[in-house]
Amino acid sequence: MKVICTGCFAAILWAQGPVRSPEVAPDRRVTFRVLAPNASQVSLTGEFQHGSKALEKNEQGIWSITIGPLEPEIYNYNLTIDAVRTIDPNNPNVKTGSTPSTIASILEVPDGQPAFYDVRNVPHGEIRMHWYESKALHSTRRLTVYTPPDYDRDARSRYAVLYLFHGANADETAWTRLGRVNLILDNLLASGRCKPFLVVMPFGYGVPPGSGNSGNTAAFSRDLLEDVLPFIEAHYRVAGDRDHRAIAGLSMGGGEALEIGLRRPDLFGFVGGFSAASSGAYLQQTFSGVSGERKLRLLWIGCGKDDTLFGASEHLSKLLDEAHITHTFRQSDGAHTWMVWRRYLNEFAPLLF
Amino acid sequence: MKVICTGCFAAILWAQGPVRSPEVAPDRRVTFRVLAPNASQVSLTGEFQHGSKALEKNEQGIWSITIGPLEPEIYNYNLTIDAVRTIDPNNPNVKTGSTPSTIASILEVPDGQPAFYDVRNVPHGEIRMHWYESKALHSTRRLTVYTPPDYDRDARSRYAVLYLFHGANADETAWTRLGRVNLILDNLLASGRCKPFLVVMPFGYGVPPGSGNSGNTAAFSRDLLEDVLPFIEAHYRVAGDRDHRAIAGLSMGGGEALEIGLRRPDLFGFVGGFSAASSGAYLQQTFSGVSGERKLRLLWIGCGKDDTLFGASEHLSKLLDEAHITHTFRQSDGAHTWMVWRRYLNEFAPLLF
Repeated sequence: MKVICTGCFAAILWAQGPVRSPEVAPDRRVTFRVLAPNASQVSLTGEFQHGSKALEKNEQGIWSITIGPLEPEIYNYNLTIDAVRTIDPNNPNVKTGSTPSTIASILEVPDGQPAFYDVRNVPHGEIRMHWYESKALHSTRRLTVYTPPDYDRDARSRYAVLYLFHGANADETAWTRLGRVNLILDNLLASGRCKPFLVVMPFGYGVPPGSGNSGNTAAFSRDLLEDVLPFIEAHYRVAGDRDHRAIAGLSMGGGEALEIGLRRPDLFGFVGGFSAASSGAYLQQTFSGVSGERKLRLLWIGCGKDDTLFGASEHLSKLLDEAHITHTFRQSDGAHTWMVWRRYLNEFAPLLF
Repeated sequence: MKVICTGCFAAILWAQGPVRSPEVAPDRRVTFRVLAPNASQVSLTGEFQHGSKALEKNEQGIWSITIGPLEPEIYNYNLTIDAVRTIDPNNPNVKTGSTPSTIASILEVPDGQPAFYDVRNVPHGEIRMHWYESKALHSTRRLTVYTPPDYDRDARSRYAVLYLFHGANADETAWTRLGRVNLILDNLLASGRCKPFLVVMPFGYGVPPGSGNSGNTAAFSRDLLEDVLPFIEAHYRVAGDRDHRAIAGLSMGGGEALEIGLRRPDLFGFVGGFSAASSGAYLQQTFSGVSGERKLRLLWIGCGKDDTLFGASEHLSKLLDEAHITHTFRQSDGAHTWMVWRRYLNEFAPLLF
């Protein structure tokens, strides 16, 4: 008996109903099915294709489509049934977030071997969830912490910390549920490719979604610096200096990480922006802080060439070049998806500390 | 700015799309809406009503219904759009589990005051997620642990442990995401109504869902006793004796807790079955073990009178009476829902240790 443990929080893909969907064949073709006898149109959208594809109905009222073969990956997808965009009702693996737009079904296409983000038979760290009082924002908020495998046993070491931020419409559980931070770092550590460090994943909204980026970063920054950092440094055995603190994020969180990191090189020696929603022209005002003696030990920006935000990262890189600020600009394949961000984490983590 | 922190993992109910659903009015009437211009029938099912109710369509193609006023509670519900049972696509608060049948949308109807399961301004414990190797089941499995507020600071105390099991179609995150164990215990502790203890929530399937209860309990029991207990007692400061160990669960997990607890009174001094899926006739074979010197310190069974499993608990209680085994049989209102189980936990926890 083998447990199919997906690594995310809510899905054990053992049990499916009489209508099996999605079904991944050994050749990695995937069939989606939904029983919708009264529907007049059913279509599929997903990260594995451009646009939408129509399903076809059989005499039992089951709509289906077979696509692929697909590359081994974790993909999001949705079904649209008579103009209502929804999930695949036969798939228990559901992606959620802080707004309705993020709801999707999750398809995992396995390889013969476990991927870099899969559970392997290696030592595993822990994920911890904390509730803390944010004095800056006058509310009780949650944050997620990854501790590496030996953290609890090795009571003398002090650890470095990566502060890692999610994107818009997500929350403080996104990097573990969808980004698989813990499994990626467990696997890197087991192969000796990165140092052990903590990852702190706060909730990235300081103001409600849709209230604008600049006000949000200002509010979030106060929560981070006045509440989250002191909370972490009081609760965990961490080394509290810039050489042992990194800051990174994706999309909205990439913008937050770049702005806060570039403004506060006294606090953070390592800065990363993954597909960052940021304005190079706005960030220019922070450049003088990271020149000279406050030089960063790492400034890493990456973006997929199919991402609508690619131009923003490209422009930022150009401005950094003009200001003679050393940085890496990783231009990868891919769009604005977790497929890209899991890979970036896997590349970024070995460069830290 | 107030963060609406729901206490479950995936939902911040700040942001909703142009079609607002569900909308809770100050009088606790609730309106559900969905844009489905091509649908010919939309209906609502949920824990707040019997059967289904039809929504009505307006000229913009938005279907809606207003119900209530509802009691302050956390309810599951589904929309059925042209015979496809699905979630409310405008509500980011989605209930997931290990099988498709569990997928639902979540409605929270707040009271003027925080409920016993809500976040309050009190000291908060932590939730920890572990990956461990189950030698008994030859797989990597996950478990969730709640540690009370002062666990990390108070490095000398050894704590009691409640082993707490989920029901069918759920997983090791159900008791925290849907049962709100952490918030309920935080609130009880803050009011001095229970002792501080750890809660260990393993994954309750030992064989795939649908393979039968008795084989499942046998396999799960080996994982629990040979892997989970030793893991917990090696990783946490716990008192490893029957006076400091409790075992309880709901539905399928209630059956597991009763069978394992009644068989092993040497290990567990406190046993609880919430709406348990159990056969009294089968459990009778375990009764002799808990008589005489191995008497349990607490045997607590509870079931809602509207639960189809009520008869099973009633029969078990009768057999326990006949065998002169001291126990509590809590006959409550309610059906087979988290509304009942959150309340049972709130009643059961103060009786422990």
